[in-house]
Amino acid sequence: MEGPVRPTHAALSPHRPPRNLRLAVTGGLFGQWLDVNRTTSIPLALHHLEDSGALANLRTAAGVASGAFRGPAYADSDVHKMLESAAWQLQHSPDPALTAFLTETARLLARAQQPDGYLDSHYQLTDPADRYTRLVDSHEHYCAGHLFQAAVAAQRSTGDEELLTVAGRLADHLCAVFLDHEGPGLDGHPQVETALVELYRATGVERYLTLAARMVERRGHGLVGPHKHGARHRLDHLPVREAPAVTGHVVRALYLEAGAVDVAVETGDKELLAASAARWTDMVATRTAITGGLGSRQVGEVFGERYELPPDLAYNETCASAASMQWAWRLLLATGEGRYADLLERTLYNAFAAARSVDGRTYYKGNPLQRRPDHAEAVGDPRCRDEWFWSACCPPSVTRLMASLPHYAATTTDDALFLHLYTPMRLACDLGAGPIAVRVETEYPWRGAVRVTVEEAPDAEWTLALRVPPWSGRTLLDGVPVTPDAQGRVLLRRHWRAGESVALDLDMTPRLTAAHPRIDALRGSVALERGPLVHCFEQADQPYVDELALDADADLSVRDVPDLPGIGRTVRIETEAVTVAAPHQDGLPYLSPGAPRTRRPAPAAAVPYFQWDNRGDGAMRVWVPLDEHP
Amino acid sequence: MEGPVRPTHAALSPHRPPRNLRLAVTGGLFGQWLDVNRTTSIPLALHHLEDSGALANLRTAAGVASGAFRGPAYADSDVHKMLESAAWQLQHSPDPALTAFLTETARLLARAQQPDGYLDSHYQLTDPADRYTRLVDSHEHYCAGHLFQAAVAAQRSTGDEELLTVAGRLADHLCAVFLDHEGPGLDGHPQVETALVELYRATGVERYLTLAARMVERRGHGLVGPHKHGARHRLDHLPVREAPAVTGHVVRALYLEAGAVDVAVETGDKELLAASAARWTDMVATRTAITGGLGSRQVGEVFGERYELPPDLAYNETCASAASMQWAWRLLLATGEGRYADLLERTLYNAFAAARSVDGRTYYKGNPLQRRPDHAEAVGDPRCRDEWFWSACCPPSVTRLMASLPHYAATTTDDALFLHLYTPMRLACDLGAGPIAVRVETEYPWRGAVRVTVEEAPDAEWTLALRVPPWSGRTLLDGVPVTPDAQGRVLLRRHWRAGESVALDLDMTPRLTAAHPRIDALRGSVALERGPLVHCFEQADQPYVDELALDADADLSVRDVPDLPGIGRTVRIETEAVTVAAPHQDGLPYLSPGAPRTRRPAPAAAVPYFQWDNRGDGAMRVWVPLDEHP
Repeated sequence: MEGPVRPTHAALSPHRPPRNLRLAVTGGLFGQWLDVNRTTSIPLALHHLEDSGALANLRTAAGVASGAFRGPAYADSDVHKMLESAAWQLQHSPDPALTAFLTETARLLARAQQPDGYLDSHYQLTDPADRYTRLVDSHEHYCAGHLFQAAVAAQRSTGDEELLTVAGRLADHLCAVFLDHEGPGLDGHPQVETALVELYRATGVERYLTLAARMVERRGHGLVGPHKHGARHRLDHLPVREAPAVTGHVVRALYLEAGAVDVAVETGDKELLAASAARWTDMVATRTAITGGLGSRQVGEVFGERYELPPDLAYNETCASAASMQWAWRLLLATGEGRYADLLERTLYNAFAAARSVDGRTYYKGNPLQRRPDHAEAVGDPRCRDEWFWSACCPPSVTRLMASLPHYAATTTDDALFLHLYTPMRLACDLGAGPIAVRVETEYPWRGAVRVTVEEAPDAEWTLALRVPPWSGRTLLDGVPVTPDAQGRVLLRRHWRAGESVALDLDMTPRLTAAHPRIDALRGSVALERGPLVHCFEQADQPYVDELALDADADLSVRDVPDLPGIGRTVRIETEAVTVAAPHQDGLPYLSPGAPRTRRPAPAAAVPYFQWDNRGDGAMRVWVPLDEHP
Repeated sequence: MEGPVRPTHAALSPHRPPRNLRLAVTGGLFGQWLDVNRTTSIPLALHHLEDSGALANLRTAAGVASGAFRGPAYADSDVHKMLESAAWQLQHSPDPALTAFLTETARLLARAQQPDGYLDSHYQLTDPADRYTRLVDSHEHYCAGHLFQAAVAAQRSTGDEELLTVAGRLADHLCAVFLDHEGPGLDGHPQVETALVELYRATGVERYLTLAARMVERRGHGLVGPHKHGARHRLDHLPVREAPAVTGHVVRALYLEAGAVDVAVETGDKELLAASAARWTDMVATRTAITGGLGSRQVGEVFGERYELPPDLAYNETCASAASMQWAWRLLLATGEGRYADLLERTLYNAFAAARSVDGRTYYKGNPLQRRPDHAEAVGDPRCRDEWFWSACCPPSVTRLMASLPHYAATTTDDALFLHLYTPMRLACDLGAGPIAVRVETEYPWRGAVRVTVEEAPDAEWTLALRVPPWSGRTLLDGVPVTPDAQGRVLLRRHWRAGESVALDLDMTPRLTAAHPRIDALRGSVALERGPLVHCFEQADQPYVDELALDADADLSVRDVPDLPGIGRTVRIETEAVTVAAPHQDGLPYLSPGAPRTRRPAPAAAVPYFQWDNRGDGAMRVWVPLDEHP
């Protein structure tokens, strides 16, 4: 049972996905997310692939239907991403409809593919003579990359190689055209780089890795092509191994980083790896929302400036959250450093999980941290979820990552199993000394108790490494305070016997968090966090969200709610707060600094951000002013 | 010497522009702005009318040249706005080039006009059969309106009625088509309403007023046409007399308000006037930047939500500042209330004046209140000025308002002269009792002293009314503290003799201003104001703009600078401040609320916002954090 990202034996990769993995999610949020993926989200997405014309485009290209091309130039990628979603999903439970979708669509793609291996229904139906002439915007490599990822997922999940054959022919065609291409020959939307490395891993064909490496190296010389947003937007302003900071279009930048890390580990290029890691560090320090969301501007879908982190206007695209997790995961494998798992978990449980409604039907493309009562007044990113979009990148990004999510729970070294994400599951794999199996029992992220029971172990010492997130102030191991190592882990090296278990208790005390003083948009406000979950205040719980101010000294009481209507299981945090009102001076919303304000006691309650907007379209805020006069 | 907005005798308009006005600006900022308009801005704009193809389009439509249409659909309006600019400018000094431009272009327009009166080079050159079929986006009425305003300006300034003849034929054509039009027949961009009323005032043709009134009434029923941003964006969601708040596209909304007030005063429609005034009050209270700037979102160029006033991301379009001054001026005439002059002055000296560089060559379209050191990283509104734009609405909005600016200085009633804006000038006009003349001597806005000398007066009592802005804490009249009336005026009713004078001293003590607690983006920060001028901190004066925090108790010392390189005369405000630094916690820009910060003393200096960005493209901020631990 293999997941995404399988470094080769030779790769510079201290951590590896578990070998000979068998993993069963046995409940919890991961279980819910997989269920809703299977029962609702994936079937609905397949309906939209029909409805939007994305499948019809391929049928027309295959000569089995007729009609004009519909949708954006990259409509094929929606199909490919749903193929990948279906493939990963089938690892968790058989589903004849998904198997049929995979099989039939693989055949359709094989028929649509041109004799020379080219496959892109947009150009085939609209402008066949112009293929590869508008790469700055055409998404031809981007679509190819998503096909490669789908093909690799299908092979790893079902063993079926029909899609891999199509992918291989397309990749061979790309190599024929672009390996020794004059000029950069680069897609304006990076993605194919990471996909080519995975295809190399799945097939052993080295020229795929070579092409990926060349594409990473060729970028950054201002030659990708003119674009209204400029070379930075297309990551073409500085060579990848030189650029000091992430910039430009967020999803493009993050996919390129994933590809750079993949190339670096497979070619042993430590300089390239260090450059990517340095940009990651800077990005986390200066451009990351507390939810893990990335991308402050809707215009251009770009990062924005250093410390530009507006809660209301932030874009925080759903695809960016998924891409950030993919980059962080590759850096975790490449370095073994715990901080990458910290951001991955923060992004997963907040920015990423919030994108989809609890019922699995609708999605946000942008994930702001604040919504005002009058949000319908303003034009811009729609401040509500939808089932599908003309540019439908985000829903399939959610389904494919949710379907492969359990693979992000653990890594191994030769003699250690590292648990990074806690969810009820049974995990078996092989270490150097022999097979092991562990059972994880937990109600995480609702509660901090995690019990890990060894069910099978070789007759040798090995290490069970348990990740301790940095927010866990007082962590207990078997009831005794424990201090994690510098990488944020408790390392339990023992000669484990089947049946032995350990109990980890993470500190789930709610906490208020302030923003760095450079973040102008959050000054004087605090966010409420508990465990890995950022909470938010919704109009459904208090009509006066926009007048609320929190008291830093008030008790924060935690209440389990087994079934909140619209949401299901949740944890509410309740506190005594105030509302603050002030008059307008000279008719303007500006005052003398000492002007009096009216404070009134007001109860306040917060639910996890990832569960927001399942109870009406009212106001919401993650960041709430701190009461200045307690 | 007549300016814009001349209510008819019958109009509901307690205040009027001075009758038989003769006005000479004798220095000061108004004098500088008029000079730079004449010597630099207008000639440069005329060059760009050639360069952009805007004049060539009209020549082709007139059959005296050939070529394809160039520029946006509304390129004609750039020409019309420069005709208006030239006309007003000629009131202040003769200029053969401007006279020639007016004369030649009037003839060109007459030749381009079709036999039925239609005149719009875009449709004439591209799609003559489709005129008026795409009004939601075509700008045909909008362009017509700007022609009407230009024609009225030419008549009032030079007496030449050639342009007025063209305008009248076009207006007659509009009346023929639209007076009894089935369906609303409305332009997606309001503007023609206010222009039709002015044309009615200049010509006495009542059907122009009738058409304007019908256009105001027909809007708001969702029938203007489908638009991707929806009916609100086109002000078509609610009837104008019912809508409770401004919304949608800012410039569209403000032009429509100007038209609504014009219609209301000329038809005696108090309900319509009250509806517009109520929206103005709400707009000022909830959607107005401290600079007077309007429009928080670049996407859609819309107002944004209530209290959504980000300093960095705000759009605050230059045209919106001009349109806001036009609306406020109409409300001032229609009500006599001083608050309209307060906002007009705030907008003039800050959001509006900042749009143009000191040298008169370049313009901002968007006028944010903050620029970060790394602003070139991000995509969006360009954070620097330019000479011209593909959509070139803003530069001619500046030149035409600057050229007519002296007209906004004063209003009259039958027996009173109200001075609203203080600038060195000589103003003569007729009151009911006879001719008066006053001389204003002042260095305002650099200093608060204003001396008004009566140079000519009838043998009767009349009132000299001096506006006292609300920020003037301690105002002196002839050295004695004086309290203005509820409308913010000192009313001096006397039997004035020639040679008598009064000295008004406005309080120019620098002051810190905080934001209303509902403005999330400005929490914990203060702005520095002095008199009508909002100040800002620029990188040219301190390299550490983004680390700065102000001490609420520190002295604010005022320093006159006669000639700051790049800026000229200015006033710097200097204070002892600090820089604040903080570490990143767990690599993220979020901290425990009590996490230590490093504070270091740092001198700080601020210049007026309207003079920003004339000394390099570094960081700037109007709102600066208040030091939390003084």
